[in-house]
Amino acid sequence: MTGEDSLISRYFKPLATDPGALDLTDDAAILKPSGDDLVVTTDAIVEGVHFLPDDPPDTIARKALRVNLSDLAAKGAAPAGFVLTLALRAADDAWLAPFARGLGEDAARFQCPLLGGDTVSTPGALMISITAFGRVPLGRMVRRNGAKAGDRVVVSGTIGDAALGLGLLKGATVPALGADEREMLIGRYRVPQPRTALAQAVRNHASAAMDVSDGLAGDLAKLCGASGVSAAIDAQSIPLSGPARELLSNGAVGIESIVSGGDDYEILCTIPENRFEAFAQAASQAGVTVTSIGTIIAGPSVPRFIDGQGSKIALPRLSYSHF
Amino acid sequence: MTGEDSLISRYFKPLATDPGALDLTDDAAILKPSGDDLVVTTDAIVEGVHFLPDDPPDTIARKALRVNLSDLAAKGAAPAGFVLTLALRAADDAWLAPFARGLGEDAARFQCPLLGGDTVSTPGALMISITAFGRVPLGRMVRRNGAKAGDRVVVSGTIGDAALGLGLLKGATVPALGADEREMLIGRYRVPQPRTALAQAVRNHASAAMDVSDGLAGDLAKLCGASGVSAAIDAQSIPLSGPARELLSNGAVGIESIVSGGDDYEILCTIPENRFEAFAQAASQAGVTVTSIGTIIAGPSVPRFIDGQGSKIALPRLSYSHF
Repeated sequence: MTGEDSLISRYFKPLATDPGALDLTDDAAILKPSGDDLVVTTDAIVEGVHFLPDDPPDTIARKALRVNLSDLAAKGAAPAGFVLTLALRAADDAWLAPFARGLGEDAARFQCPLLGGDTVSTPGALMISITAFGRVPLGRMVRRNGAKAGDRVVVSGTIGDAALGLGLLKGATVPALGADEREMLIGRYRVPQPRTALAQAVRNHASAAMDVSDGLAGDLAKLCGASGVSAAIDAQSIPLSGPARELLSNGAVGIESIVSGGDDYEILCTIPENRFEAFAQAASQAGVTVTSIGTIIAGPSVPRFIDGQGSKIALPRLSYSHF
Repeated sequence: MTGEDSLISRYFKPLATDPGALDLTDDAAILKPSGDDLVVTTDAIVEGVHFLPDDPPDTIARKALRVNLSDLAAKGAAPAGFVLTLALRAADDAWLAPFARGLGEDAARFQCPLLGGDTVSTPGALMISITAFGRVPLGRMVRRNGAKAGDRVVVSGTIGDAALGLGLLKGATVPALGADEREMLIGRYRVPQPRTALAQAVRNHASAAMDVSDGLAGDLAKLCGASGVSAAIDAQSIPLSGPARELLSNGAVGIESIVSGGDDYEILCTIPENRFEAFAQAASQAGVTVTSIGTIIAGPSVPRFIDGQGSKIALPRLSYSHF
């Protein structure tokens, strides 16, 4: 058995609980047809770009899977499994053991089993690329392009925490924050919370949806662009965590960095007005907070974020771009 | 539009010809159910490991897709599409334009459309990770674990060329070779030939199959291990190209480096004796050369490679391992 096979057998075979994974002993996995549409999404995370070299390995694994689960949830899909590409500089047990443990725990928690993968060596940055599969009834995947004027704009959870957490990890000094608050923000950066529980409510009620990964302002602009509409957002209604609210109110950060920071992995969706109550109820039953932050309006302009004085907030950049 | 979106729109949207790709304007792609099993395989290639930094971008793209198509063919599956993760240091048009062109040509040639992807920046080595999908009738994916004593061991094409080509690119001096022969071997390293045309014959006749990516000896050992059998291989019957035969006969390389070199991307399969004629005929109709190189035998031992004098050939290493 080569080093690569032994690594797979030792760390990843225990995660391959689905019969279609064939115990990771073959060249490919099998996804049985269910009559549903299969939703396919792929997202990679790179050391030094999406996670930091000294992030704990189990949180890196969780983030790699969760950013994909977040996409599935936003599309209204139930997780069905994933394949993993892992590019490593060396096979280091002290790194691999917690990585595989974190991945396995999340695969079990979100019922998204490992189906297969590829482990390669790289001379450069670590990279984890995951392709995840979900299922939706035929033709029911929620697209970005269905938003209509008059729909409510809704987000799950709170916005901006992860970008603040990344700022703290990069050395921002914020004396106002206690240790618990720092830890909460950093946790939001390292381990996003995919809104899997909200998938069915999104599928049943949303006219358009996506996850917020590159910043609320930029991602809303993408959704509006795909739908051929615009939006007016009441910045004061954007849901914030306690620490984020504190940093905003004492002037340590501005609202523009909250709405253009990345890594939220919340669901952004548009809900027809006559569906909103049912959606809010379904979200509540799923245990996920959702907040109406504005309205879809007609026209091609970039969505506007309006402050408490009714003025448009200037956004120097809408979102994170790799290039 | 951010740099990343513009890059995707400019270079990759033209490749997204399948309706399920949604023109790459959404977070996920849709694979419609066909009633078939979906075969999923994932393989990544890394700069400096699977390709060389100065390999032409179009050949890098072709290799990235073809190594996955090779897996699908070995499993008896017809290509259905793929998703791409591309990790780049910079968005360089002079690199991306030929990369996307090569990828698009192969996607069209092998009827395997781009369904989606993720483009990320990396401070390190370029990496291309592809997850490819194929379809087989229910329960008909060809596994590694079905080989039985008495089956013939068969390979497609010729073995060893790619490893010799890599040797040449790394500076091996082989005066005996002409420019055409050098180019042929290098081409076999850079652009493997997936045996897509052989998929149906493999599905109809093979008891076990895999593609030869890490070296014939090691991959045969894996297939035998999965099947709980061994094999006796007649080394003299291993199909070689003209240049490989020349290098072997003048002593420039030994048979052990031919059978343990990687990157062949030929199909290795086992065919029950009473099926062999039908398989050979189907392969011939598909335009793919196949060669019987030995026999599956009972027992747990590592497959033996026998030379012209009936002696077992010593193999210092069976195959390439990343770790």
